[in-house]
Amino acid sequence: MLAPTPTTPTPERRAVQFQLSNGMDVVVIPDHRAPVVTHMVWYRVGAADGPSHRSGLAHFLEHLMFKSTEKIADGAFPKIVMRLGGQLNAFTSQDVTAYFERVAKQHLGTMMEMEADRMTGLRLTDAEVATERQVIIEERASRYDSSPAGRLQEQMAATLHLAHPYRLPVIGWAHDIAALTRDDALAFYNRYYAPNNAILVVAGDVTADEVQRLAEATYGSIPANLDVATRARPQEPPHEAARRITLKDPLAGHASLQRLYFVPSYVTAEPGVAEALELLMSIVGDGATGRLVRKLVLEDKVASSVGGGYWGSGFDSGLITLQAVAPHGDLDSVEHGIDRVLEDVRRNGVTDMELARAKKAARVRYIFESDEQDKLANRYGRALSVGLSIERVERWPDAIAAVTAADIQAAAETYLDARRSVTGWLLPERASATPIPMHAPVNAGTP
Amino acid sequence: MLAPTPTTPTPERRAVQFQLSNGMDVVVIPDHRAPVVTHMVWYRVGAADGPSHRSGLAHFLEHLMFKSTEKIADGAFPKIVMRLGGQLNAFTSQDVTAYFERVAKQHLGTMMEMEADRMTGLRLTDAEVATERQVIIEERASRYDSSPAGRLQEQMAATLHLAHPYRLPVIGWAHDIAALTRDDALAFYNRYYAPNNAILVVAGDVTADEVQRLAEATYGSIPANLDVATRARPQEPPHEAARRITLKDPLAGHASLQRLYFVPSYVTAEPGVAEALELLMSIVGDGATGRLVRKLVLEDKVASSVGGGYWGSGFDSGLITLQAVAPHGDLDSVEHGIDRVLEDVRRNGVTDMELARAKKAARVRYIFESDEQDKLANRYGRALSVGLSIERVERWPDAIAAVTAADIQAAAETYLDARRSVTGWLLPERASATPIPMHAPVNAGTP
Repeated sequence: MLAPTPTTPTPERRAVQFQLSNGMDVVVIPDHRAPVVTHMVWYRVGAADGPSHRSGLAHFLEHLMFKSTEKIADGAFPKIVMRLGGQLNAFTSQDVTAYFERVAKQHLGTMMEMEADRMTGLRLTDAEVATERQVIIEERASRYDSSPAGRLQEQMAATLHLAHPYRLPVIGWAHDIAALTRDDALAFYNRYYAPNNAILVVAGDVTADEVQRLAEATYGSIPANLDVATRARPQEPPHEAARRITLKDPLAGHASLQRLYFVPSYVTAEPGVAEALELLMSIVGDGATGRLVRKLVLEDKVASSVGGGYWGSGFDSGLITLQAVAPHGDLDSVEHGIDRVLEDVRRNGVTDMELARAKKAARVRYIFESDEQDKLANRYGRALSVGLSIERVERWPDAIAAVTAADIQAAAETYLDARRSVTGWLLPERASATPIPMHAPVNAGTP
Repeated sequence: MLAPTPTTPTPERRAVQFQLSNGMDVVVIPDHRAPVVTHMVWYRVGAADGPSHRSGLAHFLEHLMFKSTEKIADGAFPKIVMRLGGQLNAFTSQDVTAYFERVAKQHLGTMMEMEADRMTGLRLTDAEVATERQVIIEERASRYDSSPAGRLQEQMAATLHLAHPYRLPVIGWAHDIAALTRDDALAFYNRYYAPNNAILVVAGDVTADEVQRLAEATYGSIPANLDVATRARPQEPPHEAARRITLKDPLAGHASLQRLYFVPSYVTAEPGVAEALELLMSIVGDGATGRLVRKLVLEDKVASSVGGGYWGSGFDSGLITLQAVAPHGDLDSVEHGIDRVLEDVRRNGVTDMELARAKKAARVRYIFESDEQDKLANRYGRALSVGLSIERVERWPDAIAAVTAADIQAAAETYLDARRSVTGWLLPERASATPIPMHAPVNAGTP
């Protein structure tokens, strides 16, 4: 695909923000190309906010939000949206829970009515709770029984984070899901689902005035909950020792490797550092043109794929992720190769040409995403729900443009530190009968 | 030392248990050899019960218990005990917090008065809290700055437990300690320090009647707290991947290795399993005569010391621990040697002679400990405060005697499973300039 050269590197400010009288934040992103709207409600609560012995609770409640209220029967919510020709979705992450619909503009008021209705009107009958718990138990079983890589990822997150609840899977551990009750869901719902803990994001063919009028008439009548809890999550102690885990599974097709580094996020990093990590991982980890692919797939031919990225939207921290597949099973060479590439960036930095290319790719992606209404709405919702500002979102291209090669090398030196990392090996064999290959732990505790 | 052959393998029942009117449990262990008593109060609350973003809180409160009440000035508690010729101590573990004094029998009533006074009468001034927080910050800094092995242990516990608060150090992470407030301490104190959440253990030259009379007159006047919380701790998901960590520290004298296996405790194991693990680790890990020492120190000469044990007193789980020192730095051979010894036990079990010797050693230890008043009192307090019964304590020698070689092999097969383990390497060098030795991860995910 040929990327058009962007003509406006820095999009002007486009989103409008205001607050309803009950404290609900509202963001409106005008987009008049088609008579449709994307309507999203973002709650500032996610998996990492639940009680730690009830992992999966936030996601459980997300499922339960499609159950009955006084006005809407169990399961009717999606049907109504679809009957209006709309689409809908919902998701839970560690930090946020979001619900969204995309409909023709004349149905925006109906979406707000329905979303406002379930913000506080959920009934949660015992039967609904029991059914949905079973659905999630099966969702979990099928997802993890059939994905050794997913299971490895889950065990790696739990190994990387020594104290923070990001260690717990969003879907929850199986034994915790099985123990979830109506009371758990209700307590969580009553505590966190309130207009003053939510952000309404509307993108599309509307004006801020229209949105404000509709929102006050629907969400505006819900009283604020003054007991909405502030986040008091365990924070990480210093990471002093590189970690490694090995998972053996007959279902694994090829040997593969994953690595995570514990790094700051856009929320927690010093100015410019998250942007440097973003560009660093574009230069190193891009799945088609990055240094890792060039070295391990094209040159050494030890990996069939390799890549990595930066996850920077966490409220408390971020992650650098790496993954590689070794079709011949030689994970030792793959890991050595990765470590040589990373060490080279730490010592010698990146070239001006690489930096220019990575900046351009970031800019192009930003502009492309701005053209898709749901991605655009998503960008603002995701940022604001972890405490970032509209200005931060809209000035991101400027911040990216300001990153220097020295910034990237400094970020690599500081954050590609093995002590911050966990490395996971996924091996297809059953271990008992198979000799285990020798390997050097090149990622063992070295800065 | 020559161990006398014990003549009474099963001590008869000696402790007496009853409850005060407010629900406080009392255990009396008569011991009339000298006119002294050991007086202990065990609270059924420990480090693993605090809020997870306030690690160290239980231990913080233990320190604060020596601060002022209406009747006793800041720091006067120990002085009074010592002026009466007594000794005292206190400790916090993951599951319990205990306070004890050993005094001449005529002072037992005074000890009860003082301990009852601080059960609910603590003032906790801001100055006391600030001073003690600083003391603990320094305690932690000095303990961990000067002990790389301690730091490795801490990071290993945090890596082994994927969800359970046993991952958090009892003393707390430094950043959590620094954030502890008077309100935190007070909330914890008010919630957990109550007669109906405590066990009074008195061993010594007293009768149950005397203890009951004195206890009702002191502790008995404190009302029960009906809001004492039950334990609702996150429990572990399946452990699917062997973990490894490497800590490099210039302060480390020699290269050394530690390993932990996540196993059941006396509280959680099926009948006989904890006892089998106890004997298994005596046979394998005894620091003077165990299989590991014979193989690694005497035969292969790769380790200067090696040993291991079973920690079985946890409320939610237990641990098998292993540690070895490699004076020549060859941790690879040490780890291989350990794994060969363990694999041999898993495949071929233990000999009748080893089993008989281990049983005898356990019996002798039990009888010796029964002769020491503080160890005796400790044994009952520790067991009862995690929910075990007096009968379980006193029938322990019978349960040990009933273990078979097949039980031990079965326990080894099930629990010496790498997936339940974390292996930690402590390396003395600074890593950046040093080549890292090759090693085979023999403990990688294999059952």
